[in-house]
Amino acid sequence: MRMLEDKIRAEGRALNADVLLVDSFLNHQIDVQLMKAIGEAFASHFMGKGITRIVTVESSGIAPAAMTALAMGLPLVVLKKQTSRIMNGDVVQTTVQSFTKGTRYELTLKRQFVCPDDRILLIDDFLASGEAAMGVHALLTSLNAQLAGIGIVIEKSFQPGRQRLETLGCDVYSLARVKRMDAGTIEFLDEA
Amino acid sequence: MRMLEDKIRAEGRALNADVLLVDSFLNHQIDVQLMKAIGEAFASHFMGKGITRIVTVESSGIAPAAMTALAMGLPLVVLKKQTSRIMNGDVVQTTVQSFTKGTRYELTLKRQFVCPDDRILLIDDFLASGEAAMGVHALLTSLNAQLAGIGIVIEKSFQPGRQRLETLGCDVYSLARVKRMDAGTIEFLDEA
Repeated sequence: MRMLEDKIRAEGRALNADVLLVDSFLNHQIDVQLMKAIGEAFASHFMGKGITRIVTVESSGIAPAAMTALAMGLPLVVLKKQTSRIMNGDVVQTTVQSFTKGTRYELTLKRQFVCPDDRILLIDDFLASGEAAMGVHALLTSLNAQLAGIGIVIEKSFQPGRQRLETLGCDVYSLARVKRMDAGTIEFLDEA
Repeated sequence: MRMLEDKIRAEGRALNADVLLVDSFLNHQIDVQLMKAIGEAFASHFMGKGITRIVTVESSGIAPAAMTALAMGLPLVVLKKQTSRIMNGDVVQTTVQSFTKGTRYELTLKRQFVCPDDRILLIDDFLASGEAAMGVHALLTSLNAQLAGIGIVIEKSFQPGRQRLETLGCDVYSLARVKRMDAGTIEFLDEA
């Protein structure tokens, strides 16, 4: 997506080979016009593929996921990051390790908000190792729902996330694919 | 806002006199069509009042705030809830106590995303004791910006939040004002 790559070139800042700072339009300050265009781009790719529900993980995925849900006319569910296990049959949980931040959390979903046979589209801001998306896949599978598609705003293509998710049979669609970066430079793969 | 009150009556669940569960459309599953209508209602109230920027607090405020920013054509900044102090001159922080959850966090804002003389509209999902909004006010004041308006999706009018914020000179506009509730019943104040 050209508009997004231009924005990353103009405002993104690679701190090193792994960390890309985009808090002026995606994570802290949010460019809602860009999020709307992003939602429309995901809708355009995933329309007609039998998606029944959008999910995301709090909190940086919420804005692009809300715009996608609006563009597709579908319900949105925001998976929670809890710090502890909830001993309660109403929810399903799985532990996710965040390599970037060196933290772990319990990805949490209330059963009632996903139906068996739902075909789910996960929208998230970043794809790197794919840990969060693998956690979403595990939770949905435990509820007999299917993770049918994954829409990513920025993919770090030099990390293994895409390959892991494609192995599960997911359609992974990323709007910007960073091939390589380092302090001062950001290179993109061509769009899929 | 009639559509919102109807939704609260249909799907909200007062667990007791203090806790209102609205996770089927506001906190966990999100009704994005309703969020769009909410954003337009806030825009309609606050348009022409010199607002220059929208802020919210992660994560349940993000969806209604993004829709408001879109409707008003303004930038959005999402204040972060950090668990620890950041020793770094780029950010301002203040401690907020959440009475509902019995937790505390460091409300965090990068200086560069608010300008002196900004007139800020805070959008949030709930107003109860007003602790979070008072924290936002403290951070903005420290940056010489003004908290000019507060748009709340659901106000617990039996708690002191509104009064505290009005004392600061803020225009507090709530789309649903809960006068009283208890297991099984929810009563609203008339709309402002």
